[in-house]
Amino acid sequence: MAEIFEASSVGIVEPQLAKFEESLALECGHILDSFELVYETYGSLNKNRDNAVLICHALSGNHHAAGFHSHDEERPGWWDEYIGPGKPINTKKFFVVSLNNLGGCHGSTGPCSENPVTSKPWGNNFPSIRVKDWVQSQARLADRLNINSWAAVIGGSLGGMQVMQWAIDYPSRIRNALVIASALKLSAQNIAFNEIARQAILTDPGFAGGDYLNMKSAPETGLALARMIGHVTYLSDDAMASKFGRELRSGSFDDNLSDTIEFQVESYLRYQGRRFSGQFDANSYILMTRALDLFDLARDYNDNAVEAFSAAKCKFLIVSFTTDWRFSPSRSREIVEALIAAKQNVTYLEIQADEGHDAFLLPIPKYFQTMSAYMDGIEISLNS
Amino acid sequence: MAEIFEASSVGIVEPQLAKFEESLALECGHILDSFELVYETYGSLNKNRDNAVLICHALSGNHHAAGFHSHDEERPGWWDEYIGPGKPINTKKFFVVSLNNLGGCHGSTGPCSENPVTSKPWGNNFPSIRVKDWVQSQARLADRLNINSWAAVIGGSLGGMQVMQWAIDYPSRIRNALVIASALKLSAQNIAFNEIARQAILTDPGFAGGDYLNMKSAPETGLALARMIGHVTYLSDDAMASKFGRELRSGSFDDNLSDTIEFQVESYLRYQGRRFSGQFDANSYILMTRALDLFDLARDYNDNAVEAFSAAKCKFLIVSFTTDWRFSPSRSREIVEALIAAKQNVTYLEIQADEGHDAFLLPIPKYFQTMSAYMDGIEISLNS
Repeated sequence: MAEIFEASSVGIVEPQLAKFEESLALECGHILDSFELVYETYGSLNKNRDNAVLICHALSGNHHAAGFHSHDEERPGWWDEYIGPGKPINTKKFFVVSLNNLGGCHGSTGPCSENPVTSKPWGNNFPSIRVKDWVQSQARLADRLNINSWAAVIGGSLGGMQVMQWAIDYPSRIRNALVIASALKLSAQNIAFNEIARQAILTDPGFAGGDYLNMKSAPETGLALARMIGHVTYLSDDAMASKFGRELRSGSFDDNLSDTIEFQVESYLRYQGRRFSGQFDANSYILMTRALDLFDLARDYNDNAVEAFSAAKCKFLIVSFTTDWRFSPSRSREIVEALIAAKQNVTYLEIQADEGHDAFLLPIPKYFQTMSAYMDGIEISLNS
Repeated sequence: MAEIFEASSVGIVEPQLAKFEESLALECGHILDSFELVYETYGSLNKNRDNAVLICHALSGNHHAAGFHSHDEERPGWWDEYIGPGKPINTKKFFVVSLNNLGGCHGSTGPCSENPVTSKPWGNNFPSIRVKDWVQSQARLADRLNINSWAAVIGGSLGGMQVMQWAIDYPSRIRNALVIASALKLSAQNIAFNEIARQAILTDPGFAGGDYLNMKSAPETGLALARMIGHVTYLSDDAMASKFGRELRSGSFDDNLSDTIEFQVESYLRYQGRRFSGQFDANSYILMTRALDLFDLARDYNDNAVEAFSAAKCKFLIVSFTTDWRFSPSRSREIVEALIAAKQNVTYLEIQADEGHDAFLLPIPKYFQTMSAYMDGIEISLNS
C-alpha cells in the first residue's frame, strides 16, 4: 500500500470495459455473438495516435499490469516494475493498453460469464480459445481505441506467442514486437506439465465436470496443485536452492521426530497454491493451458516458421533467460533463426539470470536496461 | 512372456520371506518389535560367501529385479537388462540379493501390513523410515543369509543413497559401492516436486486421512497424479520430444474442433498414472518420498561429506547421465569431489544419454559396458 505514490508509479488506475456487439468467429468454429474485454490504460494517446503499446498477459495474468486500484491495494499490477513514468515502458512517452484476455476470469468474457443461451455461467462449455482468437479480439480493442498501429506489442511466455501472432496476422498494425521467454510452440514436456495441472483440476471432485459454479462447489485443491506444478517449473533449481535450500520451517533433525519436520519450500508451495486457488477460475486455467499447448506459429504455413514470419513488417526484440527451462534460450533461438532466415530485423538477448522462467517479470538489471534502451529507441510523433 | 527363457535370463524366480523377531530401532525413535522382508536371489553364493551383491531399489521399485515370477508374467523384473548370466551383474559369478525395502508395499512390512497393536493395517501410522533404517534392515538380511561382506552394493537414485549409507555405516561389510544417478541430498526443487506429489495424494478425498484401507476407499487419482509428476521429471525434455513430439492421439487441427484434439503425451501420461495407481500403495509412496527428502548423508558429520566418507573402505563407482535433471551430473560430481577429498578410491563416469533420470534403468551401451567392466573386475574367491 502506498498513500502517496512514487513518481515512477502510474498511481491509481481504473479498469474499463469495452463491449463488442459484433460477432467474433473463433478458431474452434464457435461464433461469439458478443463479448466484453476489461482493460486498463496508462499514459496518454498522442495526437497522431502512434504511441500506443499493447501488453499481452501470460497464463495467470490479467489486465492489471501497473499501478494500484485503490490506496489500500497491497501490491501494484503484475508488471509495475516495467510500466510507469520513466520506467522501460515509459508512460510519459507511451500510451499503454493492458487487457484481460478473452476466456480469462478477471472481467473479460470467459467461463465465469453468463452464457446468453442458458442464462447460467458458461463453465467448461465456454468455447476453446486459441492465441489467434486473442489477437483478433485485441485488434477489435485497438479499433475501439482508434489505434491503427501499435508502437509495440509486448508479452512474455504465452504473451510472447500473442506478440508473434500479431506480427503475422496484422503486419501493418504493429511496429515493434517484443517477445520475451517464449517459443514457436510448446515441447512435449511442456504439454505434459500442463496436462498434469489440468488433470489435478479435472479429477478434483469439486470440479463437478466443470459445472462447479452452478453446483456451488470449487476445485480448490486441484487448482492449488496445478499452481504448485506451474510455480516449481517456472523457477530454476538454482533459484529454489538459494531461496529455500533445505531450510526447515518446523521440526528438527535432532529430536528424531521425522513427522514434525517440514521444509520451508513445502509450506511456501502450499501457500502459493492456496492463494492462487482463491483468485483464479479453474475453467479459465484449463482454457489458458490448452491455448498454450495448441499454439503452433508455423502450422498454417506448411510447418515452416520462416514462411510464417515472411510477411511481418515490424522490428523484433527476442529475450530469453539462461535458467528458464520451461521456455529455454534454445526455444528463443529457434524464433531468432526463423526471423533471420525470413530476413526480418531482429535483436536477440540471452540474459544471465538465476530466476528461471519467472525472470521475465523481474527487474534484472541487464534485462531492464535492454527493455529501456529498446523502448527509448522507438520513434513516435512528438506532438502530444 | 517367455515360454523358454533366453540364456541370459535368470528364468523363473521365487520371492522369499525373511522374518525378523529381534526389534529394530528406527531413526524416528519408533521401535519395530518385528518385521519381515521379502527378497529374491539370483545365482549362487560361493563357498567363501564373498560373491554376494545387494541391489537397493529406488522410489517405486521392489524386490523383483530380474527374471520372471511365472511363465505368464508379461515383463521381467525391473533391472532384468542388467542382472543375469553373462549380464553386467553376472549371476554366473555373483549371488545377487534384491529386497523390497521396509515400508514398501510388495510384501515387506509396511503401511499395508497389520499393526500388531490394532490388528488393522498400519496405514499412515506406519513409522517414518529413513535411508539409515533401510541399510540397518538390509544388514539384518545379510546376517540371515550369512553374508558378512557384500562384493558390491548397487543402487540408482534413492537406491544410490542406500549404497552411500552402507559405505559409511558398515565400512567392513561392503567392498564396492556403485552409486548411480544419485545425490548427497535433495535440492529444494526435488523436495518441491515430491511435496506436490504428496499433496496430490493427501488432498484426494479417497485418501481418507491415510486410513483408506480400513475405509475401503483409495486415493487413486491422487496417486496417479503423483506418478505423472514423477514420470515427467524422470524423463528429459529431449527424450519426450523424440518419443512424443507434438503428435496427436486424436482430433485434428484442420477441422478446428479444439476439444477433440489430444496429444499422444497426454494419454500416455494418464495411462502411466492409472497403471501405477493400481500397483502401488499411497502411504508407501509418501513414506518413500519423505525418506528421499530427509536423506542428507553429511548431516551426522558436521554437514561435511568429506568427513562422512572418511571411514569408508570400499571402492566407489559413481555414474551420472547428461540429461538427468532430477539427479544431475553436478550432484554426482559433489559425491565424487567429497570422495576424492576423503582420499577414497573412486571412478566417475558421466554418460551421454537422452533419457533423463530414467537412463539408470536402461541398457545404454557405454553405461552397460562400464557396469560390465567394473563388475568383471571385482575379485571373488574362485572356489564355488
